[in-house]
Amino acid sequence: MENKKRDAIAILGCGVVGSATARILTQDIDFLKTRTNLNFFLKYIIDVNFAYAKKLNLSDSLFTDNLDAVLVDPEVLVVVELVGGTTFAKEAAIKILNAGKNLVTANKALLAKYGTELFSIARKNNVSISFEASCGGGIPIVRAIYDGLLANKQDALYGILNGTCNYILTEMCSNGVSYENALKEAQEKGLAEADPTLDVSGMDSAHKLAILSSIAFGMQIDTGSIAVSGIDNLDIFDINSGKELGYIIKLIAMARLVDGKLSLKVAPSFISKEHPLAWVAGSFNAISIYSHTLGHSMYYGRGAGGSPTASAVAADIINVFLGTSERFFSLPIWPDKTKPASLLPQGEEKGRYYLRINAKDQPGVLSKIASVFADYEISISSVIQKEMPEESTKSHVPIVIITYAAKEENMHKAITKIDTFDIVKEKTVCINIMDEHEEIFNV
Amino acid sequence: MENKKRDAIAILGCGVVGSATARILTQDIDFLKTRTNLNFFLKYIIDVNFAYAKKLNLSDSLFTDNLDAVLVDPEVLVVVELVGGTTFAKEAAIKILNAGKNLVTANKALLAKYGTELFSIARKNNVSISFEASCGGGIPIVRAIYDGLLANKQDALYGILNGTCNYILTEMCSNGVSYENALKEAQEKGLAEADPTLDVSGMDSAHKLAILSSIAFGMQIDTGSIAVSGIDNLDIFDINSGKELGYIIKLIAMARLVDGKLSLKVAPSFISKEHPLAWVAGSFNAISIYSHTLGHSMYYGRGAGGSPTASAVAADIINVFLGTSERFFSLPIWPDKTKPASLLPQGEEKGRYYLRINAKDQPGVLSKIASVFADYEISISSVIQKEMPEESTKSHVPIVIITYAAKEENMHKAITKIDTFDIVKEKTVCINIMDEHEEIFNV
Repeated sequence: MENKKRDAIAILGCGVVGSATARILTQDIDFLKTRTNLNFFLKYIIDVNFAYAKKLNLSDSLFTDNLDAVLVDPEVLVVVELVGGTTFAKEAAIKILNAGKNLVTANKALLAKYGTELFSIARKNNVSISFEASCGGGIPIVRAIYDGLLANKQDALYGILNGTCNYILTEMCSNGVSYENALKEAQEKGLAEADPTLDVSGMDSAHKLAILSSIAFGMQIDTGSIAVSGIDNLDIFDINSGKELGYIIKLIAMARLVDGKLSLKVAPSFISKEHPLAWVAGSFNAISIYSHTLGHSMYYGRGAGGSPTASAVAADIINVFLGTSERFFSLPIWPDKTKPASLLPQGEEKGRYYLRINAKDQPGVLSKIASVFADYEISISSVIQKEMPEESTKSHVPIVIITYAAKEENMHKAITKIDTFDIVKEKTVCINIMDEHEEIFNV
Repeated sequence: MENKKRDAIAILGCGVVGSATARILTQDIDFLKTRTNLNFFLKYIIDVNFAYAKKLNLSDSLFTDNLDAVLVDPEVLVVVELVGGTTFAKEAAIKILNAGKNLVTANKALLAKYGTELFSIARKNNVSISFEASCGGGIPIVRAIYDGLLANKQDALYGILNGTCNYILTEMCSNGVSYENALKEAQEKGLAEADPTLDVSGMDSAHKLAILSSIAFGMQIDTGSIAVSGIDNLDIFDINSGKELGYIIKLIAMARLVDGKLSLKVAPSFISKEHPLAWVAGSFNAISIYSHTLGHSMYYGRGAGGSPTASAVAADIINVFLGTSERFFSLPIWPDKTKPASLLPQGEEKGRYYLRINAKDQPGVLSKIASVFADYEISISSVIQKEMPEESTKSHVPIVIITYAAKEENMHKAITKIDTFDIVKEKTVCINIMDEHEEIFNV
């Protein structure tokens, strides 16, 4: 086996990203060889459904449904796993690694859930796992962390990591479209799945946050330890109210060190129009990292879609053939080499909040609410009682409150208390306000 | 020599970046070793003036003024050149490479001028040159091009590559400060040199553009082939006029493929407030790249300053110790491996323009000017004749014209013609309007 040429690539799973990768590895192969001075070729496309790939007019000899047969081919150096999910994908990944093949994957759920186990299987077999495409689509953010920023202690990471959510929120915020209609639009444009739960619930962002934080902070991250809220309960009323106050809504995945402990959260957040992430619109992604030597740096690009994601897959494939996977073998930043994160208990972090309390329009309401805030040491920065449109049949009015920085736990207790009042007619809406992170140089 | 440990680093030139690098390699050394699993140490700081470094309370044994003695020390694997300039720095770089030491440098002028020669000397000696810090300070943009984006054909690159200029232009555009006062502010804040010529003339941006384009497009770039204009002739009047029309002024370094030929330019440019580079303020840098597979991606961060630049220097040093410089030896994208760029002749490119013509306030002026535009096939998109303030003693009025896309050469000819008219009292001001580049996916 050692004497054989190992210049072949197999793609497992040929959907949108798989077929885009196949396209690059066939249509652009001459360009790739010239640009890299390497010799490699696509030998197999493994799937049971070749609908996407067949559009590429590829040779039929590429297609197979037999993963096991591919894995015994000594020519194959890299297998690209693009099936998604965590059941068959996990089985397949373990087989690939145990067969001595290097794994390239875009599967965030798989790595977020089984990363530690898979990395350690890879290491036993002396092969690498590359996963640039798992976070931020084609943005070279995984590389930025394990290479360009390696001499930095990271202080915080903030990401817009889900293109579906960012598309929906951009439509809601810029064009006043309701959540339901924005979701429908996204589905029509192929930017959202028929079942969009994984995206809109924030779980997809949480998977990506777990992966990026694990290497940025050098800690094992359990996705279950991330406080996750999605965008599916957002009301256009609040988005418009926030906008009037100068805020834009984004689904932000954030990891911050607070007194040496990691705080992890995915939440719809109001950010100022001047915030560096505010301009990231539509299905684009962006990641801001705050580092002790570099300060703030940011990485922006297409976070999804076949062609952009395939760009990252191809970069990982090239890396394996260049033999530059030393980082995988020597750096102690991968999840099987690190220890579980020391986490800030949920509720401990301080932040500002936007609240909408739906109260009866009668005297004394505001003082009753304000006294609860006082009890929980929450200072109010501003209050706006919105006039209801005349046609409204509701007997209660929305009171919008912006707080100063308050402990999250206290905020939740205050809301729970307020929501027990008779005068309060609907569950209080609470949205994070995320101020720009401060650059701290350790000079 | 082969049996000796080669774990030592020498820094040549200990100014702002040199001392920040020394700080990282001493104060943060335990963190760096833990994060990288490597063993290396700072052995020498070579300079004749140790004013900066002495502030760090380093051991006196580090300091030397004898480069030649350092170069015969077999322990030294990497020498970091941070002296700047192209005379002594060139001599030193050649000595370093010929001594079999890997070179890490932040010197854009050196690489832009002598890159091809230095790369070929490095290759003869089987050592590498790393230069992340030469472009965009700490932003890992060089890596993005030679690694994360490697599977892409690049279509265009647009950069805000000089922090001094961006600081001055931000002050002028956001706060209405005059050029002279903004420059003075920048000097007081340590963001501009006492002699700011290299920065404000656009030459520093041109050096960086030459380096980034050479690897992005895989072509040798002669800095002399870049059309360069600086910011030192900008008038606050035009910046304010542009602002009223919805434009922000930035010094943009751009490289674009037009019909397979490379167009290179550094010029103050008006961009729309919605443009992805419009929010890049103060001394920050950003680089937008348009690629055939990934589409638009962007990299943002601190483009200058000791600590941010040292972040990039340290990443390059780590790379050498990790042995991941294969890319240097195998990829055919470095200037000694590529051919001279096939350039679009200057003047051939099309663009939109902002013009200010200073004409006598008398009948028939506009028709005379408009007829020149017609002769050169330049269509006018809008004309604004500005009222002069009452206290103005000038007998002429500024006519601001926005054109549709026109050939640059024709634009210059038209202006030359117009400026010969008696009715035109000052040289016509002409500023590029740079529209957002279109993403073209080669799918």
